[in-house]
Amino acid sequence: MQPTPLESQLNFLREVDRLKTVVRQSPLLDQSRKENSAEHSWHLAMYALLLNEYASGPVDTNRVMRMLLLHDVVEIDVGDFPIHGGSSSQLQAEQEARAAARLFGLLPQPQGRELLALWQEFERADTEDAKFAKALDRFQPLLVNVFTGGGTWTENGVSLEQVLSRYGPVIKRGAPLLWTVCEQWVKQHFAAQAAAAAK
Amino acid sequence: MQPTPLESQLNFLREVDRLKTVVRQSPLLDQSRKENSAEHSWHLAMYALLLNEYASGPVDTNRVMRMLLLHDVVEIDVGDFPIHGGSSSQLQAEQEARAAARLFGLLPQPQGRELLALWQEFERADTEDAKFAKALDRFQPLLVNVFTGGGTWTENGVSLEQVLSRYGPVIKRGAPLLWTVCEQWVKQHFAAQAAAAAK
Repeated sequence: MQPTPLESQLNFLREVDRLKTVVRQSPLLDQSRKENSAEHSWHLAMYALLLNEYASGPVDTNRVMRMLLLHDVVEIDVGDFPIHGGSSSQLQAEQEARAAARLFGLLPQPQGRELLALWQEFERADTEDAKFAKALDRFQPLLVNVFTGGGTWTENGVSLEQVLSRYGPVIKRGAPLLWTVCEQWVKQHFAAQAAAAAK
Repeated sequence: MQPTPLESQLNFLREVDRLKTVVRQSPLLDQSRKENSAEHSWHLAMYALLLNEYASGPVDTNRVMRMLLLHDVVEIDVGDFPIHGGSSSQLQAEQEARAAARLFGLLPQPQGRELLALWQEFERADTEDAKFAKALDRFQPLLVNVFTGGGTWTENGVSLEQVLSRYGPVIKRGAPLLWTVCEQWVKQHFAAQAAAAAK
């Protein structure tokens, strides 16, 4: 028997509950544990809700919020690929595309198609909305590292140059003013580290 | 020195990180642990994104999503009041209103005022958007209990009549069709429990 549209939607909502068990590299700010991808997605939607004035171009905040709520659901199938993990981005992209097709395929049409298109737009990052969403997705973990005195940078032995090159272009492209602030913080953080090491 | 608008916004975003440490009564669907209020808020925003066709009246999905992203931030100050906890709703309302004033007061104006107004609208539940948001906030934990074979109902010794009266009016008011489905599941669940007990 074909499921009703509601049954299909509830099936999807039930499936994405698993995003709460996908653990990221970044800690909570109180450093009590690592963050999971569901609460990360919530936090990013809050960033979008508050920070739209810093986007590089005109953005539709509601679309940005939707993208950020959805952007990580593929991790249910493929896990989180950490920014400092050095994984193959081609392989990652293929696995994530398959996961998106499976997950959004659980939904009735045209809803599933529309949300898949929104997820693909985020991945391509070629619209103002997607560029801003991508910038926030890099900005939030950078902030966590600044606020926790190094976080995943210290853990992974990441240098100032690597931070600037891994976060800079994406944040600068979607939210240039936020990058100006980030750059200062990052340089201060590494200068303080160097000063402490020289003692 | 007065903080800049961006500093105020980041201060708020930093503060609400604590919502990830507020633990609710409901478990994850895999029952590995209890759900926290940040991931619950993410899940509810996904419910709003998918289920708007079941609202009792015309709703603005974007406003409903925003309400649901924000609705629990007050728990940072006052904690979660479980539905089966029997706490004083007057005291709870006063504490939550104070928390909302403090938290949204961290933001620059008019942003802080606007989000406080949205939170208050959710609490009053007298608009179509807020009625639907409230319905989803009751629907999601009910689904968790159905999907986990009893969940907080079993833990708290809650009866069929209590489930119908604690969830029914709010879900029915904002999403009558969802309540029709819930009522069936709930009755089936309690009938199966009674049959098992009689063995």
